[in-house]
Amino acid sequence: MTTEATNGDRGARSGRRPGQSGAREAILSAARTRFAEGGFDKTSIRAVAADAGVDPALVHHYFGTKQQLFAAVVDLPVDPEATLRRIEAAPLDELGETIIGSVVAVWDSPAGPGVVAVVRSILAGGDSSLARTFILDVILERVRARIATPDDDGRARVALVATQMIGVLVARKILEVEPLASMPMPDLVAAVGPTLQRYLTGEIDTAAP
Amino acid sequence: MTTEATNGDRGARSGRRPGQSGAREAILSAARTRFAEGGFDKTSIRAVAADAGVDPALVHHYFGTKQQLFAAVVDLPVDPEATLRRIEAAPLDELGETIIGSVVAVWDSPAGPGVVAVVRSILAGGDSSLARTFILDVILERVRARIATPDDDGRARVALVATQMIGVLVARKILEVEPLASMPMPDLVAAVGPTLQRYLTGEIDTAAP
Repeated sequence: MTTEATNGDRGARSGRRPGQSGAREAILSAARTRFAEGGFDKTSIRAVAADAGVDPALVHHYFGTKQQLFAAVVDLPVDPEATLRRIEAAPLDELGETIIGSVVAVWDSPAGPGVVAVVRSILAGGDSSLARTFILDVILERVRARIATPDDDGRARVALVATQMIGVLVARKILEVEPLASMPMPDLVAAVGPTLQRYLTGEIDTAAP
Repeated sequence: MTTEATNGDRGARSGRRPGQSGAREAILSAARTRFAEGGFDKTSIRAVAADAGVDPALVHHYFGTKQQLFAAVVDLPVDPEATLRRIEAAPLDELGETIIGSVVAVWDSPAGPGVVAVVRSILAGGDSSLARTFILDVILERVRARIATPDDDGRARVALVATQMIGVLVARKILEVEPLASMPMPDLVAAVGPTLQRYLTGEIDTAAP
């Protein structure tokens, strides 16, 4: 459903000759099915390659890592890796402000409208299983791994972070609710950063009674 | 765009005879245009009635208050008045938990799927000016009026509340991100209530530098 907006970009980015598009499309199609049915973790490059009838090396050659393959499947117009690295490099007690600052920087960048188009399509009734696995397994999993403790796997915490980030995206970029839509980044970081920080490392009282 | 999902309900609810549907539809159409172009505050029942070629009393007769007319325009399957009254009755320092508790109670109720359908449609590219005015002028205005001070009109505060509530709706009801989607209400209130409370009455540092 989102292919119209970004297929052109992807073709330009990969720079493949047209004759190779059959294999690329077969890999994408196989990956889409695998990710949607099994989620991110249970999907292997090897299985995708087998489904597509190609060598696993070709999958890596065309798409890079499994995460980058996933980004291609959901037609994401940006590679989330750079943002994830910035977040991973942040000290634990600066995770909240780093997440809101670095993610909104992408949304406010020239790549932002492409991201918004993908999100709109998903929210309109597109494949929400892909969106779920992207948010939880790709974007938030590395954050979750850092904050998990023996008593708390952190899943509720990163899901709460997801609610706040989704809401900022929708209010700022889709509904354009003022003054949120034009709030300067430092103000947005000051307002939302502590929310995310509490969700990740603070007292949230989500233990069952 | 949302009429398929809820027109049947509205017809059943109003119980009007088919012969009157022309005036009702004319009022709805005029109201939709007025609300979209002028927002909630600047739209008067009198102007809507004039546009529709009917007496203002007929607008009140069919739809009740301006707020209820607005709810009909956006095809909202529930009347937000009861929820707004619960929120207004809450002490200032319990606003956060009251908002998350009472609003999510509606989303989790039998009326919930209808609300979600409207939201999906808006996010997919429906009329976001109506959504904006509904969120800010109808739902959050009465909360804003309570927290406004001479130095802070509260607009940024209620917009931040909107981000968190939209995100919970999307994550819980559209993307169904676990464990958020099945998080028991007391846990959700304990986790999100303090976020909303801080946005409304706490230190959010949104002052310009």
